[in-house]
Amino acid sequence: MTFDNIRNDFPLLSEVCYLDSAATSLSPEPVLEAMLEYEHKYRANAGRGVHRIAQQASQKYRDAHQKVRKFIHAQEGELVFTRNSTEAINTVASGLAWQKGDQVITTLLEHHSNLLPWMRLRNRYGIDLQLLTPARDGTLDPAALEAIITKQTRLVAISQASNVLGNVVPISEFAKICQNYGALLLVDGSQSVPHIPVDVERLGCDFLCFSGHKMLGPTGTGVLYMKTPCLEPLLVGGGSVERVTAEDYTLTDGYERYEAGTPNIAGAIGLARAVDYLNALGMENIQNHEQQITRYIIKNLTGIENVEVFGPGPAGNRIGVISFAVKGLNPHDVAVMLDGEANVMVRSGHHCCMPLMQLLNLTDGTVRASLHCYNTIEDAELLVDTVRKIAGDF
Amino acid sequence: MTFDNIRNDFPLLSEVCYLDSAATSLSPEPVLEAMLEYEHKYRANAGRGVHRIAQQASQKYRDAHQKVRKFIHAQEGELVFTRNSTEAINTVASGLAWQKGDQVITTLLEHHSNLLPWMRLRNRYGIDLQLLTPARDGTLDPAALEAIITKQTRLVAISQASNVLGNVVPISEFAKICQNYGALLLVDGSQSVPHIPVDVERLGCDFLCFSGHKMLGPTGTGVLYMKTPCLEPLLVGGGSVERVTAEDYTLTDGYERYEAGTPNIAGAIGLARAVDYLNALGMENIQNHEQQITRYIIKNLTGIENVEVFGPGPAGNRIGVISFAVKGLNPHDVAVMLDGEANVMVRSGHHCCMPLMQLLNLTDGTVRASLHCYNTIEDAELLVDTVRKIAGDF
Repeated sequence: MTFDNIRNDFPLLSEVCYLDSAATSLSPEPVLEAMLEYEHKYRANAGRGVHRIAQQASQKYRDAHQKVRKFIHAQEGELVFTRNSTEAINTVASGLAWQKGDQVITTLLEHHSNLLPWMRLRNRYGIDLQLLTPARDGTLDPAALEAIITKQTRLVAISQASNVLGNVVPISEFAKICQNYGALLLVDGSQSVPHIPVDVERLGCDFLCFSGHKMLGPTGTGVLYMKTPCLEPLLVGGGSVERVTAEDYTLTDGYERYEAGTPNIAGAIGLARAVDYLNALGMENIQNHEQQITRYIIKNLTGIENVEVFGPGPAGNRIGVISFAVKGLNPHDVAVMLDGEANVMVRSGHHCCMPLMQLLNLTDGTVRASLHCYNTIEDAELLVDTVRKIAGDF
Repeated sequence: MTFDNIRNDFPLLSEVCYLDSAATSLSPEPVLEAMLEYEHKYRANAGRGVHRIAQQASQKYRDAHQKVRKFIHAQEGELVFTRNSTEAINTVASGLAWQKGDQVITTLLEHHSNLLPWMRLRNRYGIDLQLLTPARDGTLDPAALEAIITKQTRLVAISQASNVLGNVVPISEFAKICQNYGALLLVDGSQSVPHIPVDVERLGCDFLCFSGHKMLGPTGTGVLYMKTPCLEPLLVGGGSVERVTAEDYTLTDGYERYEAGTPNIAGAIGLARAVDYLNALGMENIQNHEQQITRYIIKNLTGIENVEVFGPGPAGNRIGVISFAVKGLNPHDVAVMLDGEANVMVRSGHHCCMPLMQLLNLTDGTVRASLHCYNTIEDAELLVDTVRKIAGDF
């Protein structure tokens, strides 16, 4: 497999120039085929029946867990399938026994999904919530954590890569500080796991949350990795129990404890196939491929009059998320023009990061182009040329 | 569309005799095609972008909500997509502000997913949990509720149809009692909504929970209907907010309030197509069709020596869920034999209803055959003939 010959696996690319993968990626044909195979050959519930196709569905579902687990190099711990990254983060927020006075530290770089769950804890339990402030390019200094962390800090929640500015945060440096203070570390990997090699052991995190639908998998899939299965489950019900009587229940061990109810079986099978697909390309290759295109975009957009590009420069440690603005134009208008004039699909607005937008004084938001493995330098050229035209016309 | 010509829509039926639809139903080709169309033509995130395909995805996602809402004849209230029925029930259990002394009444007929969330409330908040006891055939007497309900009863949670015994519970009679005492009524419609016409106004319930994957929709889909959007959401994060600052957040109105994070967009589109499919057949027709097959099965299984059939008789108010046992054989062994000898797929065991099994003194569980619209009288004959052989051989 090479980056040249995979585009046929994504039929939508013959219709549009898709630069909105940070919102959701496309799924290649092999992922869709794996899900269709489930529907056509062994559609059954998983973990619940002894008949042949139920056994087959159960085995494939267990295999999916193992594949995703290996993808993030998890040697120990538990990996749970969720609907999305948001559910994964909320599961941690709801699953720890909080006490008034506990401290949580997060940052102003975060997506709402890694901010609101902690704000809610403050409102519910009176925990002390502290927010680290990033530099204008998104950089988060570990020294800022060192300055405010205390023995009361129960958890630190940071995204590994910003969905607005694209910068990659040096998680392992934050992890060392957390370990020194006995604080748990939650990493929001929604924008990193799909694009760069991620190893939970090297990161040193206690929780890693990410979304399957951003890594070529289907919508309705997300992942919560926990080093120690220390959480009270978000849901209880069928499939998560060892024994139930009229008086009480005993939860089972393993990921089933956290996956009450019939899971998204087709989704899990699709996600596992997406992981195979990413592995066949190689995550380092994907990172390099996207980096080349990113550099082209940043370098060329920066040269256009009336265009401002946010986040780290082309040489920075970053992913293929490029936020920019055209002076005098609302970002939504720019997105609509890119669509109308050149079939280029980009996101616009606050990207679920309103506090960051307030910090950057970008209350109309930004235009955001975001890449995945299927994008090409031609996509980048089309984006740049069209932005140049829009900015020039205006 | 007729019941004769739909079997080609379910390719798996040419391989196996599928009698496990109470665990999960099959999805017809039009449902899979609708999801593939999303992947191929407008795979984008919903409710988040202004570009063309994001708009299309958003519109289809909103349409899916409307279709499912109309399917249960909801005139008012809010309908929220969940992963499954279990999540829907847990959302209610977690979303009300409980106080010590509040009473919840449920029954021993329930699936674990409509039992454990209430047991957990008792363990967490000291609520008073009461369990109504069904008759041996599953019948629940409204008088039993009348006898224990008080003004302290905050919520009554009952399934409309048993996933073990198949009996249909007269929900509207329970609803009247609840209304008299000001108690909320939650109906677990997991086994009823896919098989009989259900109208939330007629039921008189406050919450209706059901699973999309049991009604020809994809796995990873479920529904929570609430008459009044009175719940604190289970999750908070992206997509569920009106405004966020570094200090606090304001949740949005509408179903988005309860659907933080990227939803299972393909799943919702598939579920909406499943609703169209069910409507084209007609829910009353489906009920009649399944009733005929159910009567045949019950009548004929009952006549076999060493076979005991549980639940209401063939003339009872029931759905196509038929539990039985073969004397001297473990239900799992019977299920394996039905698979091995005749390609008949049935569920066996406790069916996530351990307390009911203890009540019925069926600690090994039962064999359970369960129908959907695609089953035929030939399926029933094959089941009955094979059970006769198994029971005879033994």
